[in-house]
Amino acid sequence: MTMLTAALIQQCCSENRETNLATTECMIRKGAAAGAKLVILQELHSSLYFCQIESPALFDLAESIPGSSTARFGALAAELNIVIVASLFERRAAGLYHNTAVVFEKDGTIAGTYRKMHIPDDPGFYEKFYFTPGDLGFNPIETSVGSLGVLVCWDQWYPEAARLMALAGADLLIYPTAIGWDPQDTVDEKERQYDAWRTVQRGHAIANGVPVLAVNRVGVEQSPQGDGAIQFWGGSFIAGPQGEILAQASADTEEILMVTLDRGRSETVRRIWPFLRDRRIDAYGELVKRFRD
Amino acid sequence: MTMLTAALIQQCCSENRETNLATTECMIRKGAAAGAKLVILQELHSSLYFCQIESPALFDLAESIPGSSTARFGALAAELNIVIVASLFERRAAGLYHNTAVVFEKDGTIAGTYRKMHIPDDPGFYEKFYFTPGDLGFNPIETSVGSLGVLVCWDQWYPEAARLMALAGADLLIYPTAIGWDPQDTVDEKERQYDAWRTVQRGHAIANGVPVLAVNRVGVEQSPQGDGAIQFWGGSFIAGPQGEILAQASADTEEILMVTLDRGRSETVRRIWPFLRDRRIDAYGELVKRFRD
Repeated sequence: MTMLTAALIQQCCSENRETNLATTECMIRKGAAAGAKLVILQELHSSLYFCQIESPALFDLAESIPGSSTARFGALAAELNIVIVASLFERRAAGLYHNTAVVFEKDGTIAGTYRKMHIPDDPGFYEKFYFTPGDLGFNPIETSVGSLGVLVCWDQWYPEAARLMALAGADLLIYPTAIGWDPQDTVDEKERQYDAWRTVQRGHAIANGVPVLAVNRVGVEQSPQGDGAIQFWGGSFIAGPQGEILAQASADTEEILMVTLDRGRSETVRRIWPFLRDRRIDAYGELVKRFRD
Repeated sequence: MTMLTAALIQQCCSENRETNLATTECMIRKGAAAGAKLVILQELHSSLYFCQIESPALFDLAESIPGSSTARFGALAAELNIVIVASLFERRAAGLYHNTAVVFEKDGTIAGTYRKMHIPDDPGFYEKFYFTPGDLGFNPIETSVGSLGVLVCWDQWYPEAARLMALAGADLLIYPTAIGWDPQDTVDEKERQYDAWRTVQRGHAIANGVPVLAVNRVGVEQSPQGDGAIQFWGGSFIAGPQGEILAQASADTEEILMVTLDRGRSETVRRIWPFLRDRRIDAYGELVKRFRD
């Protein structure tokens, strides 16, 4: 089987966790009915993007892995005979939480997890308060639909993360994401930011000769403190191994974005552009320095 | 002085070296007259792209550094009071040649050199026959117009090279280039290749928060063996530190592409997108492996 059909679930979230989960489940079922063998959910899809403020009470949203969410998505994966990539707020211990992607095999078992390695912290995105940086490294998760290089949101700006996944044999790069605009930004600034976000990820596809699947949250979420909002920009997309756009979602609507990938294409592209052959690994040592000063 | 005007010289080359050099000089003078304080030449601008075939006789095209070309460009830099980035076929010793960029300070002295680190080898681009991989590492060249992260052509596909330059304080990433299509390729494939080339470099701008200036050869050059040709795709461009296109040249015409960069913009962009802050240098060690198997 050289073709793989995937579905990306771009959705709006509300304060009602059960509603969010029901919406997600409904969209997963539609994607599977349309032929998807791999369904990818956006970052922290069970709740509002709670990192707009720093509040100790919000750690109540976290859950154990395995736990009730993994039981639910695992059962759904098994029922539909598909691989699912979910994104959960993981409670590992009291005072120790992660932003964790969980991959379910089509038999419902957990194929593997990835704990977000790069953690942002900007006004309205106070993630360093909530998430301990991941300690599982950059390792693809092996599944029946291929070796999945799952990374999360802020990771998408780091070529190092994409490269390490590709070097470990990832067939696909997958980015569950929650990124948006300050509604006060100018139209020009919004365009530059969205285009930069998409372009840097297309660059990872090109540099590594692998498809990239990025699924982003959509909709406006007000800050609980009433001092702002985030306009999540949707715009989920799938790029092929030359960075070419294969499917593109809107900026303001819930969507199931479908794509059928030719898994032989990476091999073809890497033969005409054999970048892995010529890496100067003898001269890359200082990539592990903070700054070369 | 926070603004910097630069000119990229996108030109066609012929078999006549003196004609090529005269054209280059004329275009440099025009760029300087239009206000450029930094002029960047395309890869191997003094000759046809000789790497379409492997011929020992073609090593005659190589020259010593310093030598007659560096004397000529140094004098021009001093006369016009500008910084020039040139690209030469360096004869270092008998049997030892490099693809070398030379940066001239505005007083005519050589500010520094960069020997192309990543060497391609594909049908029609037999560079591994001609060029020993560089041994000077990825180090910016300090000049009166800033710290120049000069890289060459094939380097442009490697995020590692761009990152190492940025970590060493490069203010700009600069890519003299000679890349083109097989004229037999389909229109779709040509578009994918050009867009991938531009996108991966825009990605370096974004990931590192620095402008990218890429200058490419233009025109069709037949293989001396009559078995093909390369349609150099021009398309030189300048992107800002969010990857936004600031200036764009055509695919088929000689051009002096001018841009005025706001050098304060990188600092602003890096404050809103502080990627350097969050690099997981504790987890990047295996970037120096060929493959993680």
